Amino acid sequence: MNFTFVTLFPQLIYPYFSDSILFRAKEAGLIKVECINPRDFSLDKHKKVDDYKAGGGAGLLMTPQPLFAALEEIKKADKEAYFVFPSPVGKSFSQNDAKRLSRKKSIVFVCGRYEGIDERVIEAYGDEIFSVGDFVLTGGELPSLCMCDAISRIIEGVLGNEDSLSEESFESELLEAPSFTKPNVYDDLAIPSDFLKGNHAIISSLKNRMARAKTCFHRPNLYKKLLKTKGS
Amino acid sequence: MNFTFVTLFPQLIYPYFSDSILFRAKEAGLIKVECINPRDFSLDKHKKVDDYKAGGGAGLLMTPQPLFAALEEIKKADKEAYFVFPSPVGKSFSQNDAKRLSRKKSIVFVCGRYEGIDERVIEAYGDEIFSVGDFVLTGGELPSLCMCDAISRIIEGVLGNEDSLSEESFESELLEAPSFTKPNVYDDLAIPSDFLKGNHAIISSLKNRMARAKTCFHRPNLYKKLLKTKGS
Repeated sequence: MNFTFVTLFPQLIYPYFSDSILFRAKEAGLIKVECINPRDFSLDKHKKVDDYKAGGGAGLLMTPQPLFAALEEIKKADKEAYFVFPSPVGKSFSQNDAKRLSRKKSIVFVCGRYEGIDERVIEAYGDEIFSVGDFVLTGGELPSLCMCDAISRIIEGVLGNEDSLSEESFESELLEAPSFTKPNVYDDLAIPSDFLKGNHAIISSLKNRMARAKTCFHRPNLYKKLLKTKGS
Repeated sequence: MNFTFVTLFPQLIYPYFSDSILFRAKEAGLIKVECINPRDFSLDKHKKVDDYKAGGGAGLLMTPQPLFAALEEIKKADKEAYFVFPSPVGKSFSQNDAKRLSRKKSIVFVCGRYEGIDERVIEAYGDEIFSVGDFVLTGGELPSLCMCDAISRIIEGVLGNEDSLSEESFESELLEAPSFTKPNVYDDLAIPSDFLKGNHAIISSLKNRMARAKTCFHRPNLYKKLLKTKGS
């Protein structure tokens, strides 16, 4: 999978791939990561990439010319490039989107800065617009990294242990049950005793009840939806 | 505001503060950023920080001892430390949470890795557990950075132009209207002509209608909620 980040700040992107799982995925050739800086495409003599909003309003926007030029070059070089714009104004990105996008060949994340991007760029190139949550960030780099991370770890071979994927939150539509590890008692705090008795039917039923309780408490809407579709 | 990231991978955190708005906020003393590595607190002779799940199941969990030791040290040094655990199993982080947390003195993000953290750590220290979205990541570093970024930009002086804050998505419960900048026509694509005529009442009404259309299309649930509360 090829990931391209169109960003004014490549130095905020590359370090995330310098360690841990995504570093190993890159080293193993499972993912490729490249940054393209729209500033390098600016025809302005000062390499300007931003300007005031039309019709007034605070803050600056990224102008069309450098982005059109950068995105056009990417599209010419790779016909399968799939353009994703992170934006608080977009569909909520979900685990299902991560799965679906993990089957693409090339994903291009176009990271806005300042007050965002001139809408004409998004209209011309956006294959999808995703929000990672109902909050506002200083730029599109972090949500792009979130999406890239969520997509990457689904690609075969990246996690090393594909079993891990099937027990996770959103895989069964319930949030994941609490988990425990050694020691059985730490500082007077004990693991639920059924976890230690080795009866997997009991453990599995206990986990399911804890997962339901957690989902019901933290995400009542998700839980209601589940009751509706499963009738259970 | 003091931000502490408890993470096995400080090198994935620090670079995000090396440029742009958060770099300037750090230089201006508006935010302070520190990483604490739980591995430095492990009493295991190989500095191990993970172990198998109790009761079976794929993958490894972060063990209690290094985290209890690290978090206890942080708490002793700063009684106002507020512990936030990013987790897909948590309340959805929103712009209102960002605002609320921007009034704290010290926030500690405890970043899980592997299959997560032994639940006893979260029970003992978690002031809040937040999810940034319904997808699964390789670690808590990116959601912690998202929350830190969303909180930081609300702190007075960080953005430079506080007017920018009031026009954004979620500030009016509607997603933000599309924005445009120069040139008025780019490659045959024109800005909506009303934006250029200088009648601010017309521009404002047009933006409101576009914001409604966008919210209705991308986030029907948000729009329904708005209609219910505002009756408009």
